[in-house]
Amino acid sequence: MDKETLIYGKNAIIEALESGNRTFNKILISNSAHSDSKIEKIKSLAQAKGIVFQFVNIQKLNQLEPGGKHQGVIAQISPVKYVELDDFIEQNRGKLASVVILDGVEDSHNVGAIIRSCVCAGVDGIILPSRRGVLINPTIEKTSAGAINHISIIKVNSLVNAIQRLKENDWWVIASDHHAKDNYYDINYTDINFALIMGAEHAGISKSLLKLSDFVVKIPMLTNFNSLNVSNAAAIILFERCRQILGLKKDRGK
Amino acid sequence: MDKETLIYGKNAIIEALESGNRTFNKILISNSAHSDSKIEKIKSLAQAKGIVFQFVNIQKLNQLEPGGKHQGVIAQISPVKYVELDDFIEQNRGKLASVVILDGVEDSHNVGAIIRSCVCAGVDGIILPSRRGVLINPTIEKTSAGAINHISIIKVNSLVNAIQRLKENDWWVIASDHHAKDNYYDINYTDINFALIMGAEHAGISKSLLKLSDFVVKIPMLTNFNSLNVSNAAAIILFERCRQILGLKKDRGK
Repeated sequence: MDKETLIYGKNAIIEALESGNRTFNKILISNSAHSDSKIEKIKSLAQAKGIVFQFVNIQKLNQLEPGGKHQGVIAQISPVKYVELDDFIEQNRGKLASVVILDGVEDSHNVGAIIRSCVCAGVDGIILPSRRGVLINPTIEKTSAGAINHISIIKVNSLVNAIQRLKENDWWVIASDHHAKDNYYDINYTDINFALIMGAEHAGISKSLLKLSDFVVKIPMLTNFNSLNVSNAAAIILFERCRQILGLKKDRGK
Repeated sequence: MDKETLIYGKNAIIEALESGNRTFNKILISNSAHSDSKIEKIKSLAQAKGIVFQFVNIQKLNQLEPGGKHQGVIAQISPVKYVELDDFIEQNRGKLASVVILDGVEDSHNVGAIIRSCVCAGVDGIILPSRRGVLINPTIEKTSAGAINHISIIKVNSLVNAIQRLKENDWWVIASDHHAKDNYYDINYTDINFALIMGAEHAGISKSLLKLSDFVVKIPMLTNFNSLNVSNAAAIILFERCRQILGLKKDRGK
């Protein structure tokens, strides 16, 4: 059993089924669940892939997910496969790649939302430290809305070493810190391999990582209420990069 | 008691004390709370303002906030004062103002994060429908990190009527919808009174509101994984507006 994890919530399970990246042991469906189009979709996807689903008492689901957010369906699946940093660097050599490094972000909802934004914004990987912050858990699986199956998740023992490895391989490392002088939108993101470090909401980014960064940027505000949620801050920077890349594509197309 | 509400969490309480916008009845502090700099700050702010604080058993706090997120301190305060839409329009006449309209956003964490981004991005108000979605509750107070005390909260019975009132008063209404043709960054936000409608994560924005909007914009993605968290989507659009406004100020300053 400890080689398995649980995911819950209809969308998270549909995404995991559709991605084909996870091995399903079993899907448990509450026998009192209102059978809507999503439950039907889960059943037909499971059937097509030869995955067992089983109707159980809702108490069984409540026991497995006491937070009450299972929406009547829980899947027992293989855990996320962490990717080695060196493999990630090799896989992305020669293309303009991007990665987000989370330094001590502990709120699972924020990590899940960041993973969603990353996948939308074409980011190739997420680097998580094995000790500082959270690793992938069922809450992250759910709040990522299945995005977790579409991105490389890299777990490292030392963020300092990871950043050094990236720099040795011609990645540019950009840290987000609200004391910075430069603005996030003054960076040209269109022709670099780009690693973005986001820090914990209160503590910010560790000094040792700030020192290693090629650029430190802030998100300038229109008021002195300087307190963005970390997932929102990440989305703002990642989509400025998207805006620049899409603008460039458009210009080239003309 | 029903003219009171509870707020919990150290930062939320410090922000509410500092804003001066809320009337405190009492602050309850756990007598087993580790007295850190934030608890000390709450005590000294309360003392300076003549607000009673009282040490209680942690059980008392757990009873008032069973979610276990009180961080050892809960305040009994006056509820958020909702502002009338017509008053809001009058207060903001003659300046370039902005407001975010939430159409059916039900997750309190998302609403709290959106309020934070709004205050950082200089947005003047939030419009909430009295029936579709959530109204201000302790989870929103906490996740807004006190931002709620720095913005007008407008509760309306009908979003259709509210949008019509805004349009009659020369506000431009922009809806975010991922089926749109135009991109959010193709709008010039620097010289308009700007109302942004954000919809529920799955249902999106009601058709009746889309029809009333002056512009419908999408956030273009670099992949076909089209599933941003609603608070992240709001932050991306609001900070594009910031970027444009700050860019303009810089150009004028030259």
